[in-house]
Amino acid sequence: MEIKLPIALEALINHLSRLPGVGKRTAQRMAAELLRWKDNDLCAFADCLAHLHERVQSCPICGNYTDGGPCVICANPLRNPAQICVVENPAQIAIFERTGCYNGLYHVLGGKFAPLSGVGPEQLRCTQLQERLKDGQVKELILATSADVEGEATAHFLADMFQDCDVAITRLAIGIPAGADLSYTDSPSLAQAFSGRRKL
Amino acid sequence: MEIKLPIALEALINHLSRLPGVGKRTAQRMAAELLRWKDNDLCAFADCLAHLHERVQSCPICGNYTDGGPCVICANPLRNPAQICVVENPAQIAIFERTGCYNGLYHVLGGKFAPLSGVGPEQLRCTQLQERLKDGQVKELILATSADVEGEATAHFLADMFQDCDVAITRLAIGIPAGADLSYTDSPSLAQAFSGRRKL
Repeated sequence: MEIKLPIALEALINHLSRLPGVGKRTAQRMAAELLRWKDNDLCAFADCLAHLHERVQSCPICGNYTDGGPCVICANPLRNPAQICVVENPAQIAIFERTGCYNGLYHVLGGKFAPLSGVGPEQLRCTQLQERLKDGQVKELILATSADVEGEATAHFLADMFQDCDVAITRLAIGIPAGADLSYTDSPSLAQAFSGRRKL
Repeated sequence: MEIKLPIALEALINHLSRLPGVGKRTAQRMAAELLRWKDNDLCAFADCLAHLHERVQSCPICGNYTDGGPCVICANPLRNPAQICVVENPAQIAIFERTGCYNGLYHVLGGKFAPLSGVGPEQLRCTQLQERLKDGQVKELILATSADVEGEATAHFLADMFQDCDVAITRLAIGIPAGADLSYTDSPSLAQAFSGRRKL
């Protein structure tokens, strides 16, 4: 028999359960912890949530997170404007930045094709990308969508869309993960690594 | 190189990282998900947090969560007032209730002894428990603190405190988990199961 919790606690648990990776039991544990927080910590957290959309905006150029106006990358004059790396979401920009091997600009699509959820070219920021290619400054478009079926479909759609533009269209290499033991590599990656092998 | 995130997003990630079981990476994933929530969902979540302490109170009798006034268990006339099960925190009450095998009342201590963090008898709701035993209605006190060192110490302290009261003091049985394979049982549990063996 489940015990009846106070309404406000039940509501909090329901909100927490909607977070990724959080089930009912974890949400209960989080709520118990939040009850131990001081009132001003709770209010600061609440304030963050209530004003999230007005304080964290989309960069009008690339779609990355920004405090307002162009994002830190688009506003940086040291970045190479001849390269645009196309990613699915702003969180992926952080992943590329951590590698430290890319100094161009980004373009956030806002997702990848997902026909079952009704996500097609119109739901993604494809026309905005087209706009950015118009002035001829961009020389390379790196399609860095995921290596799954949806990501590949999205990349191929974009490659078709921009085939007549004077821009090199590239795709991230697929192969064995760096540092990986070959014994544990999955066949699709190994097959792609084979066909994409390079001269030493 | 870590990319500089908008201040409000960084703040949100810091709040989320304070939740149990949530590291930096998980907090980033949660924040990205929260950015996809609708504004009114975020505001409802924020409202829950900001008013948590005023809406979720402690039962004045047992310390369980309540909307206000005595909790659902203390207010239930069908519960047996002759038994009090002493637990560390309100979340543990839910665990006992799920078993469906107990119909008495509870008393929440608010923790267990933790000398290093300065938690001793004064920080726990021990005197409140003493008050509840004064009218002689309680016949059994079930010390259901954890089976670890701190829980045992707390239980022994309470047993000493109430040894002169006309009340049976019991402790939960320690033994092998129900349904467990003996091969994987830890020695302390097995030793306790041995010494606590019962006649069939």
